[in-house]
Parts: sequence; C-alpha cells; structure tokens
Amino acid sequence: MGKIIAFGEMLMCLSSQGHSRLKQTKSLDIDFGGAEANVAVSLAQFGEKVSFVTRLPENDMADRAMMSLKSFGVEVDHVQWGGDRLGLYYFENGAVYRGSKVIYDRTNSSMYTIKPGEINWQEVFKGASWFHWTGITPALSENAYLVTLEALQAAREMGLTISGDYNYRNNLWQWGKSAEEVMPELLSYCDIMSGVHPDVDVVQEKVGDEQFRLAGNEMMARYPHCKLVVFTSRGSVSASHNTWQGILYDGIEVFRSAAYNLTHIVDRVGTGDSFMAALIYGLRNYESKQEAVEFATAASTIKHFILGDQNVCTVAEAEALMKGNKNGLISR
Amino acid sequence: MGKIIAFGEMLMCLSSQGHSRLKQTKSLDIDFGGAEANVAVSLAQFGEKVSFVTRLPENDMADRAMMSLKSFGVEVDHVQWGGDRLGLYYFENGAVYRGSKVIYDRTNSSMYTIKPGEINWQEVFKGASWFHWTGITPALSENAYLVTLEALQAAREMGLTISGDYNYRNNLWQWGKSAEEVMPELLSYCDIMSGVHPDVDVVQEKVGDEQFRLAGNEMMARYPHCKLVVFTSRGSVSASHNTWQGILYDGIEVFRSAAYNLTHIVDRVGTGDSFMAALIYGLRNYESKQEAVEFATAASTIKHFILGDQNVCTVAEAEALMKGNKNGLISR
Amino acid sequence: MGKIIAFGEMLMCLSSQGHSRLKQTKSLDIDFGGAEANVAVSLAQFGEKVSFVTRLPENDMADRAMMSLKSFGVEVDHVQWGGDRLGLYYFENGAVYRGSKVIYDRTNSSMYTIKPGEINWQEVFKGASWFHWTGITPALSENAYLVTLEALQAAREMGLTISGDYNYRNNLWQWGKSAEEVMPELLSYCDIMSGVHPDVDVVQEKVGDEQFRLAGNEMMARYPHCKLVVFTSRGSVSASHNTWQGILYDGIEVFRSAAYNLTHIVDRVGTGDSFMAALIYGLRNYESKQEAVEFATAASTIKHFILGDQNVCTVAEAEALMKGNKNGLISR
Amino acid sequence: MGKIIAFGEMLMCLSSQGHSRLKQTKSLDIDFGGAEANVAVSLAQFGEKVSFVTRLPENDMADRAMMSLKSFGVEVDHVQWGGDRLGLYYFENGAVYRGSKVIYDRTNSSMYTIKPGEINWQEVFKGASWFHWTGITPALSENAYLVTLEALQAAREMGLTISGDYNYRNNLWQWGKSAEEVMPELLSYCDIMSGVHPDVDVVQEKVGDEQFRLAGNEMMARYPHCKLVVFTSRGSVSASHNTWQGILYDGIEVFRSAAYNLTHIVDRVGTGDSFMAALIYGLRNYESKQEAVEFATAASTIKHFILGDQNVCTVAEAEALMKGNKNGLISR
Amino acid sequence: MGKIIAFGEMLMCLSSQGHSRLKQTKSLDIDFGGAEANVAVSLAQFGEKVSFVTRLPENDMADRAMMSLKSFGVEVDHVQWGGDRLGLYYFENGAVYRGSKVIYDRTNSSMYTIKPGEINWQEVFKGASWFHWTGITPALSENAYLVTLEALQAAREMGLTISGDYNYRNNLWQWGKSAEEVMPELLSYCDIMSGVHPDVDVVQEKVGDEQFRLAGNEMMARYPHCKLVVFTSRGSVSASHNTWQGILYDGIEVFRSAAYNLTHIVDRVGTGDSFMAALIYGLRNYESKQEAVEFATAASTIKHFILGDQNVCTVAEAEALMKGNKNGLISR
Amino acid sequence: MGKIIAFGEMLMCLSSQGHSRLKQTKSLDIDFGGAEANVAVSLAQFGEKVSFVTRLPENDMADRAMMSLKSFGVEVDHVQWGGDRLGLYYFENGAVYRGSKVIYDRTNSSMYTIKPGEINWQEVFKGASWFHWTGITPALSENAYLVTLEALQAAREMGLTISGDYNYRNNLWQWGKSAEEVMPELLSYCDIMSGVHPDVDVVQEKVGDEQFRLAGNEMMARYPHCKLVVFTSRGSVSASHNTWQGILYDGIEVFRSAAYNLTHIVDRVGTGDSFMAALIYGLRNYESKQEAVEFATAASTIKHFILGDQNVCTVAEAEALMKGNKNGLISR
Repeated sequence: MGKIIAFGEMLMCLSSQGHSRLKQTKSLDIDFGGAEANVAVSLAQFGEKVSFVTRLPENDMADRAMMSLKSFGVEVDHVQWGGDRLGLYYFENGAVYRGSKVIYDRTNSSMYTIKPGEINWQEVFKGASWFHWTGITPALSENAYLVTLEALQAAREMGLTISGDYNYRNNLWQWGKSAEEVMPELLSYCDIMSGVHPDVDVVQEKVGDEQFRLAGNEMMARYPHCKLVVFTSRGSVSASHNTWQGILYDGIEVFRSAAYNLTHIVDRVGTGDSFMAALIYGLRNYESKQEAVEFATAASTIKHFILGDQNVCTVAEAEALMKGNKNGLISR
Repeated sequence: MGKIIAFGEMLMCLSSQGHSRLKQTKSLDIDFGGAEANVAVSLAQFGEKVSFVTRLPENDMADRAMMSLKSFGVEVDHVQWGGDRLGLYYFENGAVYRGSKVIYDRTNSSMYTIKPGEINWQEVFKGASWFHWTGITPALSENAYLVTLEALQAAREMGLTISGDYNYRNNLWQWGKSAEEVMPELLSYCDIMSGVHPDVDVVQEKVGDEQFRLAGNEMMARYPHCKLVVFTSRGSVSASHNTWQGILYDGIEVFRSAAYNLTHIVDRVGTGDSFMAALIYGLRNYESKQEAVEFATAASTIKHFILGDQNVCTVAEAEALMKGNKNGLISR
Repeated sequence: MGKIIAFGEMLMCLSSQGHSRLKQTKSLDIDFGGAEANVAVSLAQFGEKVSFVTRLPENDMADRAMMSLKSFGVEVDHVQWGGDRLGLYYFENGAVYRGSKVIYDRTNSSMYTIKPGEINWQEVFKGASWFHWTGITPALSENAYLVTLEALQAAREMGLTISGDYNYRNNLWQWGKSAEEVMPELLSYCDIMSGVHPDVDVVQEKVGDEQFRLAGNEMMARYPHCKLVVFTSRGSVSASHNTWQGILYDGIEVFRSAAYNLTHIVDRVGTGDSFMAALIYGLRNYESKQEAVEFATAASTIKHFILGDQNVCTVAEAEALMKGNKNGLISR
Repeated sequence: MGKIIAFGEMLMCLSSQGHSRLKQTKSLDIDFGGAEANVAVSLAQFGEKVSFVTRLPENDMADRAMMSLKSFGVEVDHVQWGGDRLGLYYFENGAVYRGSKVIYDRTNSSMYTIKPGEINWQEVFKGASWFHWTGITPALSENAYLVTLEALQAAREMGLTISGDYNYRNNLWQWGKSAEEVMPELLSYCDIMSGVHPDVDVVQEKVGDEQFRLAGNEMMARYPHCKLVVFTSRGSVSASHNTWQGILYDGIEVFRSAAYNLTHIVDRVGTGDSFMAALIYGLRNYESKQEAVEFATAASTIKHFILGDQNVCTVAEAEALMKGNKNGLISR
Repeated sequence: MGKIIAFGEMLMCLSSQGHSRLKQTKSLDIDFGGAEANVAVSLAQFGEKVSFVTRLPENDMADRAMMSLKSFGVEVDHVQWGGDRLGLYYFENGAVYRGSKVIYDRTNSSMYTIKPGEINWQEVFKGASWFHWTGITPALSENAYLVTLEALQAAREMGLTISGDYNYRNNLWQWGKSAEEVMPELLSYCDIMSGVHPDVDVVQEKVGDEQFRLAGNEMMARYPHCKLVVFTSRGSVSASHNTWQGILYDGIEVFRSAAYNLTHIVDRVGTGDSFMAALIYGLRNYESKQEAVEFATAASTIKHFILGDQNVCTVAEAEALMKGNKNGLISR
Repeated sequence: MGKIIAFGEMLMCLSSQGHSRLKQTKSLDIDFGGAEANVAVSLAQFGEKVSFVTRLPENDMADRAMMSLKSFGVEVDHVQWGGDRLGLYYFENGAVYRGSKVIYDRTNSSMYTIKPGEINWQEVFKGASWFHWTGITPALSENAYLVTLEALQAAREMGLTISGDYNYRNNLWQWGKSAEEVMPELLSYCDIMSGVHPDVDVVQEKVGDEQFRLAGNEMMARYPHCKLVVFTSRGSVSASHNTWQGILYDGIEVFRSAAYNLTHIVDRVGTGDSFMAALIYGLRNYESKQEAVEFATAASTIKHFILGDQNVCTVAEAEALMKGNKNGLISR
C-alpha cells in the first residue's frame, strides 16, 4: 500500500480554557487544526505513512504548525513556504445550551494566496496510493480551488484512490463562485465521498437503511466515479450530549456501526475528521467494510472525549472500544 | 426609557479552579459579584444604560472591582469611596453529591459602614426610570438598611419603577433586627418582586398555575404596590443537574416560560440574578410578559453554563436559545 | 480506642490537567497517593489518631510526600528513610468511552528494597488498636511481603484489630510468587477483609443479599479469623457515570447502604480506599454496622467528586450526605 | 482643559509567558496595545478625560479590546465598527543577549480598511483641546493616511494642541509611498513632536545639551508649527539593562530629566508610549517643563518594570519616584 | 534544650504571579505568613521542636493555614479556635524602581479579638525553653497587647529565654495607644532583641563597629534584661538589588557576618524573620556568636531567592553557603 | 557531508516553574533533555541531518520524548524500544546564592538495560559522516559502556569523524568501574574532545593562551587520534551571573571567541551541550576554526537565556549575535 497524501489549510487554534468564554479568558491555548491536517495526524498515529501538503508563511507560528505535524510523524517535505500569514481561529467550548463558538481569522492566509503550478503534484504523488481533500480548500479562493483541481486531475491520472469530504462552511465561499457551482466538478473525481445525511432528527426518529440507500444512490448517480458513500449520523440532545453512528453505502449494501451515546462530551471539534481518517485506515487495513465503519465510529467516538482538533488516539485504543467493553474502566 | 439604577454591595469572589476544593487549590481566581452588581452587569451587556451605586475602599482590589464594572459598560459615577475593606467570599464549585461552597468574609466592608445621607439619591435618580435592590443590603447593617430605605423613598417619590429581590441569606441579618421585622416595609415600595416558591419538590411533582396564582395573590395582598410577582422554579436532581423555569404572575394571568433540563451545570452562582436582569430587560423591551419571561429563563439558562457570578451573554445569544434550536450546535 | 497504624507504599501521582491526555499536557500536577496512605489521610481528617509506616528515600520529592501526610495530621514517626527512589505513577483522567489511565513507574522504590527486621513493629504498635494493610505491599517484592508478614504477626500477637484490602493489581506480583500463593497466609490474620464481589453486572441486574451472603460465607470459611466481609458494588455505565453501594456481611446479616447514582464523576481513583477508611471510622465510632456502611458509602461517594487520590472530606460533610438531602445545594 | 483625543490602531498582543519563546509556549497571554491606545490608557489612569478613536470589527476579540479600554476609563464613543479583523501581534520577551521579538499579523485589519469621511472629526473634537497621533497610522494604508490627514486638518482648524510621535517601523509602509514622502506633510501640523536622537551610543558617550539643541533646531526649522521637540535617550547595555532619560527642547532651553539605570528590565514594549502620555499629562498639569519631563521619565521608567504594553501606573506612583526615594522599598 | 514557642498572628498571603501587578493578575497565589509563623516554620525546618500559638477562625482557609504549619512540622496543639476571620494581605512583587506592595486586610481577624486568659501559658510553656514574639502582635488590639504581656510574664517566671523583634509597622497601632507607650514595657522582658540600625545609608557609607556598639549600649541601658542586640544591615540599591549583613552585639564585642551582594532579588518579604529564626537556631546550636550570626545571614540571604514569606531552606543549604563556595553552581 | 549520529540517554525533565523550589511547586513542567539529545536537537534546528540513537520503553511518556525529537526534525529510525522505564530528573532553577538543583531518577532506565549487539551500528552509520557521544553513557551501566565501545569501533572502521564530550558526573559511575578506568579507551577513538579547563577562577584571573595550549597538548599526547581540543571557560560570579568564552586548540593555534558577560541568566542547563552542537555545526559549515568557535560561543550564549535543556535557536539568531550588535534590541 502506498502513502497517503492530504492537502488543505493548516490553522492555528487559539482556545479559551475549560468552560471560560473567549470574553473571559486571560490566555489562549495554542493548538493546530484544519480538516485535512486532522486527517493526516490521525492516520500518522495509526501508523500510516502520510504526507501533508499545504502552504505556510515563514514565521515562528507556522514553524510551530510544522513542529506539531512532525511530532505526530506526518511528512512535510512538500509543504510550500510563502505568503503572509498563518490562518487562525478562536475557539470556546460550549456546554449543554451554550454551543461551542468558532471565530475564524483566516482570510489572506498563505493558502488563500497559493498559485496554480506552485505544487509539483507529479512529485508529490510519487509512491502514493491515496489522496484526501475537503470542500474547505476550494472555498477559500479561486486559486485554492484551481490548485485543488490540479491535484485531483494529477491524482486521477496517476491512479490514486481519492476521498473527499464536502465539509460545507457557510461563512467561506466568498471569492465569487458558490459551492454549488464549483463542487460537482471536483467531487466527480472522488472514489469515496461524504454523503448528505437524510433530513431527519435522529434523536427523535430512527433513520432506516432505506433512507441511506436512497441518499447514497442519488450521490452515485450524480458522481459515477463514486464507489462508497460515507454518512455520520449525529443526534444532538445538547452541546454536551450527542448520539453518534457511522454508515457506509457501497451501492449494494448499507453498513451501520454500533451507535454510541456520548453523554459528557469533552470537545466536538474535529470529530468528523477523525471519522474520515479512521475510515481511510479501516478500508486499507481491515478485510470488511463492516469492520472499517466500526473502527471509524469507535475512533471518532473517542475523539469526542479528547481536547483539541486532533484525535490523540492509537489503533489499540480505538480497537479496544470497537471490540470490547464500552464502560470506561481504569487501565492500569 | 430612562436609566436603570442598581444599589448593593460588590464582592470580590476568590474561587478554586475547576473541581479543586478550597483546601486543595494553589491559587484563587479573581472575579467580582454581588447580587445587584450582577444585575447591573447583565443589563449593561444587554445594551441598557445602567448605573451601579455602592461604597468601596480606596485600594487596588476595589479599583479592580470598578474596572470590572466599567469594562462591561456599567456607569460608576455615583460610587462612594470610603471605609476599610472590600467584602469578599471564597468559592468552590461542587459536583453531583458535593454541593458548591461559599465562605463569606464581608463583615465590616465599606458597604457595612455606609452612612445615611452619604448618597444623594436625588442626584443618582436624575434621568433614571428603574431602581433595583435586593434583601442582601438591609441584611448587612443597620446603616445599610437605612440607606436602602432612603433610596426606596426617593425612588418612589421620583416615580421610578422599583424591583426587589428578597434573596434571603441565613448567615447575614446579624445587626439586631431580623428579615421579618425589616423587609415588609422595604418590600412595600416595590412594583415587582420575587415571590416565595410554592413548597413543592419540582423534580418529583409538577407545580400547577393555581399554586403560583395563590402564592402571588398572597404577595399582592400584603404589598399593594406590587404589580408583578416573579418566580424561578428550580428542581435539584443533583449539584450538576437541575431543572429550570421562570414564572410571572400579574394578578390576572400566570405566564410560564419553557422549562429547561440543565444536565451538566458549569456554575450555578448568579443564576437568580441573571434571571432578574433579563426579566427587567424583557419587561422594558418586549411587548408581552410571555416574551419577557421566556427571555429571562433563556438568559439565565445560559448563565448555568458560564463561569463566574456574571452572565457574560448578549441579547442575541439569549434570543437564539429563546426562539430556536435548543441543542447546542457549534456556531462558526 | 487506640491509634490506627497503616503500612504501605506512598506514591507520587503526576497527572495531566482536566481532560488533557498525558501525551498532550505541558505540565503534570503533583499529588500523593497509595492505597494505605489514602486510608491514613482519610482517617486523620476524620479526627482519628493515625500513624503511617513506609520507607522513603532522602530527597526533596519524598520530603514532599511526608509534608503532605503531616499537613493532614498523619503521624510519621515510624517512617524509615533509605533506598533510592520514590515510586510514582502518571495519571490521566478519562471520560465516558475513554477510560482513565495509570502508568506505574514504581519498581525499585524504597519500599521494594525494604528489609525484614528494619521496622520495630513492637515499637510501632505501642498504643495502637488497629492495623490496616493491603495486597499491594506483598505484591511489590519478596522483602515487602516478608515485612508485611512480620507486621501481621506482631499485630496479631499484640491484639490489634486487623483490616486488609485485597486490592489485586495484575501488573504487580513480578517477584516470583503469585498472589494466589502468598495472599491466603496473609489474609488469615485479618478480622475484616474486602470480599470478592459476586460476578454480576450491577448495571444490568440487581445483586440480592443472598449472593453477598454466599460470597461472604465462602471467605469466612477460608479465613476463620474473619469477622466481617466488606463489599463495594460498582456499576459502570461509562467512565463518567457509575452506580455505587457498600455492603457488609458479618456472618449473620447483610447490611446494605443507600445506592448512589454517580452521574458526572470527577475522579474515581482512591474511591475504594476512601470507602475502607470511612468504614474503619464507622465501625469505631457508630453503634451499628448499618450506620458504619452508610457512612462509608456516603464518604466514598463524595470522593468520586474530588480530585486526587485522597478524600479531602470531613466527617460533617459525609454525615450531611449520609443523613440528609442528596441534591447538592450550595452551602453558604 | 478640554478632553484629549487619541487616534490609531488597537492591536491584540499575544505573548508567551515569562522567558518562554513563542516556539515553546503552550498558551499565549492576551493583552492589548497599539502606540496611541497605550497613550490613551495611560492618560486615563492619570485622571485625564480621553477618548480613543479607532475602527474595529464586530467580534468577541474586538469586544475585549473595547472592554480593556473601558476598564481603564477611556471613552470609546467614537469607535467605528466595521471591517474584517482585529490586528494582532505575537510577542516574546527577551533577556540580555536574546532580544525581544514581535511578529505582526495586522495586515487588512479594520484600521487598514478605514475610509476617508467615515469619521466625523468635527464631532469627535467637540470639547477636546488635544489631539495625539503617531506615524504608525499613515504607514498602514493609503486610506489610513488620508484619515490621519483629515484628523490633523480638523484639529488644526478647531485649535487643538497636536502631538505626534514619529514611531518609524520599517516593516510597515507597504502601501506605495514611503515615510519620507508622507510624514513631512503630517508633521507640519504638530505643536509637539518626537525628535531624532543624536546619533550617539549613550552607553559609551554622554550626549551634550548642544547636540539636542542642534537636533531640535533642525526640526523646528523644518516644521514651523513645532514648539517643543521631545527626545528619549536610551542606552542599551543589553536586553535586560538599559539607561533612560527624557529631554525637551523648546527652541530656547534644553530640559533634561534625571537619568535612570534600568538594571533588570521586565518589559520594554510601550515605554516610549508611556513617556509620551506622561509628557502630555505633565505639560497640562505642571507649571514647568522641567517638572513635565521629570514626570514623563519617572512614569516611563516604571513602565519598564510592568508587564504588557500599558503602563499600569498612577500619578501618585510616578510622582513618588520623581520626587523621592529611588531604591524600591516595600510599600505596606 | 527545650521547645521553642512562637506567638503571633498567622496571615494568608494572596499574591500576583511573577511581575504582574495586583491590578493585572487573573488569579492570586495562596501562601501563608506572619512574622512569628515564619520564624516557627524556619526553625521547624532546621530540626528544632517548635510550637506556634495563635487564634484562628473555624473555616477552610484557616484549616489551610494549619495544614501549612503542620506540613513543615510545626506543632499546633495550642492554637485557639474562635473569632470571625483569617487576616490576609495582598502582595505584588516589585522590581528595581517599582517597589513591592502589601495591602493588608487583617482588621478584626481572630487574633484581634483574642481575650486575656484564653491561653493557658503555663500549659503552653511546659517543656519549653525559648519564647519568641514581635511588636506586630501588641500593635493589633488592646487585647492582643494584653495577651502578649501575659505570655511575657509567664515566660519570664518559667525561666524561658525571650527573643523579641520590634518590627514596627506604621499602619498598625490603631487601637488607642502608640508603640512608644506600649513597647518599652514589653521589651523589658527580652533577653535578645532587634536593635535600631544606625541612621546611615549603607550603600553609600560603611557603618563602623563603633556605631553598632553605641546603638547596642543604648538598648542595653534601657532594657537591663537584654543580653544581645541584633542588627540587620540592608543597603537598598533598588528593589532588585540590596546588600545584606548581620551584626550582633553582646555588650562587649561586635560580631559581623560576611556581607552579601544580593543582585537579582526574588522575594524580600520575610527575610528579616528568616534572619531571626536562623539566629535563634545558631545561638542554640553553634558554639560561638560569630558562627550564629554567619548562619543567620547565610540563611536569610538564601531567603531573598525564595518565593513566599517562608524560608524553604535546610540547615545543610544554609551551611553550604555559610562555609563555602558562594557562586551558585548547579547541584546534581 | 553525511548525516550526524548522536547516541545517548534521553531523559524527561520535570521542573518547578520560575523561581519556585521543588518543595513548593504544585505542578512540574515537562521537558526533555539528555546531553546527546540536546546536541541532536540543536543540530537539527541548524538544518543538519541528524539521527538520534537511544533505547526507550513502550509507554506514553517515552512516546512524548520521541514526539519532542521528531518535532525538531531529528530522525528516530534507529531508536530501540524495550526496557522498563524512561529516566527522569527533577529540576529547580536557582538564583544568585541559591544554586540550581537536579535530582536524578534514572537508574534502571531502558538505556541502563541496553544489551551489546542490540544496535546494528553498521546500519545506523550508513550515510553518516559524524558520530557524537559523551561520557554519560558509559557511566550508566556496564552494558551501556559496552554498547558505546561497539559504536566507537564501528564509527572508526567506517571512517566517521568522532566527537566526544567527557561530561563527568560524580553521582553516576556506580556499576563497578570508575571513569578513570573506562574513559581513556573510549576517548582514544575521538577526533575532537572536550578538554580539562586550566584550574583557574576566570572571574578573578585571565587564563592565557599558553595555559590552554598546555592543557591541549597534554590531551593530544594522551589521545593520538585527537585533532582538536575544545574548552568552555565559565566564570561564575553567582548562579545568575556568569562569564562565558569558547576556546579551541588544534595542536598549533589557540582560537578564542569573544567573551560574553551573562548578567541575568535564565537557565544554565544544557549550555555545554549547545556549545558542542554549535561547534560541530561550525566546523562543518564555516571555513575557519575562528568562525566555528565564535558561532559555538554565540549560540551557547543565547542558550543561557532560553528555558529548558534544548537550545531553541536558529543559525540566523546565533549569527546575528556572533556578527553584530550585542545589546538585545527588539526585533520587529
């Protein structure tokens, strides 16, 4: 199995501590995130060989972003240096009726000002067999969209498996075109993609396999390359209490993981990314799609109880939850 | 609409961090509170023009109390400087079967030693249309009681709406007279007052409108100025889990807000004050009493998930909960 | 009533803060623990005269361990100084599906290298009426086992009441003999011992008195000195939510405490020790076994909501829960 | 005496703690600065009536900037809301041979995108008698330059005293014109301005009055409105040890303050601003220029021993140093 | 040698961190002090048997004060419980031209309201051979003065050596009589007392033996019991840089210790107390007065580089400085 | 130029914060060190390709040690996993007359129990041209000594340049042989080695070139492979104030760097390692020995003002000091 390539923006996350609001905190904890970097970090911790491609400015804070990736074992040989700033966001963690809050300050980051042709994708994809991207990158700027397109074309030509996460963010897409205009072309390159969850409140009502099948078939009809549609089914009781289940549809069968009752959530940010990372690992390392979705849901369940964007979690920890006892005994 | 005046003692709150007990912590976080200051701060954040009247000693810690009020936009032009000390309390936050703990060290504070005549209430109330006080101030000392009485007489004369919160604290009232002897006279000036909740465990049993009507009628019979009785109905499952609902009675109708299930409480202190502040805002800014009580309950619900005495919360945030989705999604 | 003697290893606990994992934290909080030291500290806080016997190296970190014991009022006159290191463990607190994690680094601590004859047990037990030990000490090394045996023989000879907690830890017992080979001889000295809980998932199924009676009778048959078998019945819904009940069996009657629903656990470590300490206190200070077990369960319930190994809790606090209101109101 | 108006960009300062480098710290302390805001905050603490004019985006971090100004008593009625982001900088404090480090991330802040005509200077200057600006604002963008020009023209017309601090920053001035092209016109409006220090290493060599007179005369020749030239004379032994003296030249006489030996510097940032603020206060409140410069140097000396951009220092504290004992006894 | 008894008020010290001012800090570090408690803690660390006598209220913060004493091994059997509050002070550490600042909030503490007859001094002094007090206690209230007098009379009768530290604090002595009226009687009981330093700036000028002899003779003439006068000679270059030397005069000879150049002071508070404690230890444990004063100066020199009121320092550490290398190598 | 290989033990450093003593701190900051790892980290930051060889246990704390190395870009492909524990030490930073303190707890670490033959040095040295070791490794255990010997033999055979740092630590060398018995054989493999500084107090007296030449010649006579002797000349005024200079002797000429006056030291630990790393970089990257020693002294001078074992410093920063202004201006 070849290397995995992930491409996207890396962000510095500045968060208030514990339950403090951004308006109250005296200091901000530093962490790093970004949907695609989260996937890369998770996969590297699972033991996969991963290279993360992004563009960063030359300063100490971007050096720290690199140091963070390297500490997890993510390869950074193809990172481009240039541009003016590291994108960042401020984060406060919510509780029950006070939702979590993200304030972005990412405009004009080095990824916004990346230029087509700057990345030699043929070089990047040498020895690689998988490419992962999300809808956040083309949302940043026209250039970021064009570089994503370059990457997808090269990946397709060179025969990599392509996974894409739609990851729609309303407050992005300011550069002139809408997601609706841009995404279909990009998604048409994907082998695996996140699906649009049936419009059902899963706390109130159980979603049947048939509904996922319908949604999946619609995707597959629209994007003929697509071989697997991925759903995460979240029921939101409150900011502190969710339910969680993963679903795969391969055009034939619907695979549902165990459903988890997430009663005292620690940090929800990055849980979708942790699911996607663990699914990629699962599809590459287990024999069945059922095991893959079980692993993805177990690993991303654990992420809900870990601070920060990244799922600081090993294969052994996720498998222990996936396979066994689910009542959180002390390990000593 | 004129300015709102709040009068009372401002306290420094020194609290242990997170779940640490006072006996365990290496340092104490500094915050400021006091029932009436909490109301003032909340109203200022809601955009109301508020002036807080108190008495403070001349030292750095009292300066900080002032800086805290000013940072929220509360006016402090009528604060009196004098006396020996800033009252304070130590606080540890409880969990489930370990209740929260407050240790007061407020005796002989500058508010205890305030003197009748020191505050020119005619000056203070110029341009004001609302006066808010609580039963904590007359409990401190005979002088504090006399100054409260001065304020109420002046407010009544100058035609302000008067709201009073009984706020009975057992460990106060050491100066010679009991609450029972003193409060009726003071309450008789009020247009709006907190009511005595029917003696029912609301976790076990639903309290019907009739019970609130009875309790309200009793208040109104006793205090003929009273036009509105305010109830907060708390069910205490544990220190970490309460239920919460606001109720108004205007002599004719009982208005009940939505009931909230507060499953992972962050900090209960100041929730009653946040309710009163939001109710004052609601009565002044919404057309109906129903909206006012809904806003008050929503805003004070959010306070349960915010650290510190003060409800660091905007109108927009409280309205988002009041009007819409109650499941704590991430706002980004 | 004479003094209580507890004997065992004292450990430094280095823990990550809040929900941070050991892999994430920038600093480690210092605390001290060890099953027997936890019992000693709890009893000293309850007002009992307690002396803790252990062996510690001569360095600043061991001095701190001593300072911690002394600050709680535990006597340390019989502590031996010698050996090379203070045993320690790293701790991260879990949540829901992520269990708590303990990484021991205690091998070759000063307690491992204690030598038979080093402690003058006749001197230690002067004026004492109770001796407490656990199965952790004989698990450390052959010498630690031999010194435990010395202590038990001396205690028996001198007529002390002996309580023992089996406290089986899989990762200990590396010195050549297994728990099965060693423990029966040691347990045969005990008047009071922890019992093996019936093999039942108490979340799913209620355990009847009869089952405890059976388990207790089995212990008593095997260890004829045993007059009281102690059970703690934990149901594990998740790492954050357990149920908790204490049970005593005296060969005739089964005494069950109230059952507690521990919905938002703060720290589970040391809860068993806090139960044992409170039980010893209860047996010495209440008239009935029922009260003793109620006190033990109430005190150890509170421990679940206190950070650290030690139950920083007074008799008054435990009795307030035991006797009264269980819904965690604010105490002010 | 009328109000003082200060105009400029407000920045969030994110700094590592103590001696940690930005590459090492786990969290960043939040503070606020900006040359003109520092002047405003200092003057407000000295008891002057000050209004700060700037442009800020609508988000929580900018709200905090406002809260910080308000807490010190600075008026914020003329702050404009709009634009996309709050400018910020990262800061690490140096020591001896490791200089302090500032990484700016301010491009495209709300002050960069301010528009001519947006601020009604006639309104702003009502009741004001002093206007303070620095060369940082026109360096940001053409629009920021144009708005500065508007302000200066209005201030001149309305008869305010104008003070300007050149404050040249090499890494700004990216918008097309250089400082040399733009500043002379702006400086020509000033009554009081910072002078170019004679090119002498003051650690090695004493600078005579004649040299300041020469430098001052040159300024006055070039800018005929200028009535007072202000010099700060810093000798840099190391990042931790400087010497410090203030000098005024009014066209006739050179006024030199006492010289201070700053042997264990805590934080050098904002010391120039603290000097300028205290000088403005001094010129308005003392009878002689000698007293004004003594006060300015004493106040800014204290700033070297205070963390953060702002000089958290009262008139009493600065006067105690100015007039008396300079050996740092404990005040109790 | 018998036990040492120290009597005085114990205070909680709440301090800002590092170089933060009280107006800036988000939290306050908790420590405990008080001149006499500092002496007791230091002596206990040196291995002396010490009992501290004070009066404390019954609450968690006072419990912590006790825990702190006990952790250092100070005996607390004669502590009286009663009264309303634990005295406290706020502290910010200065640097160079910004002096340290202490804000007391101790009025009406439990020591203020102590009553004559409350302490059974005959019981307290059983087995004791030394009594230490300071001029702070009689400064608090008339009752505190009377209890000090009781103690001195009993100590004299029972033949203890009495050491007294004048410790004049301007802001105390509010109860009606001045230090000048009260202290001579109390000092007349002392065998050892702190002397009034010759009025000389020791940075500028060397103080000769003759000057100390003169000052000492004056004391001895006035207080015939006095056998030893103790001087500490501090030169104050700045808040961060002092010089330090101890001097004894026994009526015959002047003993001067080595003089220390304290170039980067960490915390000056409690250095006088640490000198007095080490002197008491020195007089009891060394053969010569020269050694005693060398030890006292060395131990108190180390205190200047330790945070908090208490000298966390062993005999071995102080002797290493006293006897040997004074250039601060790493000990590993 | 080939890769650099460094071999040695990696230690976790647990330190108290700021000026707190180990006996005072509530938490310990986590960092990583070890003489050879410090050299590797420094070289990687300078842009050299470095691989660090060590042996580590399989647990989270050792994972963190790895993550730390990887974050700086050090290669860890040849790290051996096995053994029981990660060596650690406790550290408190001194000031002036209170020296820094290190308490080791490293016995029986995974490096102590490494076995000869475990590391395939032929594999490790592929593509490498430089090997660095220190006298700490053979001091740990006989096996660690034997593995060092294996490494030196292989490095010599494969033609690498070998640098060795004597680094004598008194408290190591417990395994049966002394440094004097073991080191000469190991040193005989070195091309470059640290020299024994002439026995002179450099604060009092200048050491002439002749003295270094004598010392160097003695080394070279004893170890014929040695081509370069390295001296660091430290004058210790106090724990906070040292002088610092580097000296090289190549058998012909003595090269002395500029001498630095280190007046407010932040952290002295690891400064010798930072010198050695920078010297290796200098010898590989500059044309002259003079430049190499200037770079080494400049880089290690900066380390004195950086917290932690590792010199978080770039080539650009060290060169800026080496070449230019030495007075610590703010870089913005």
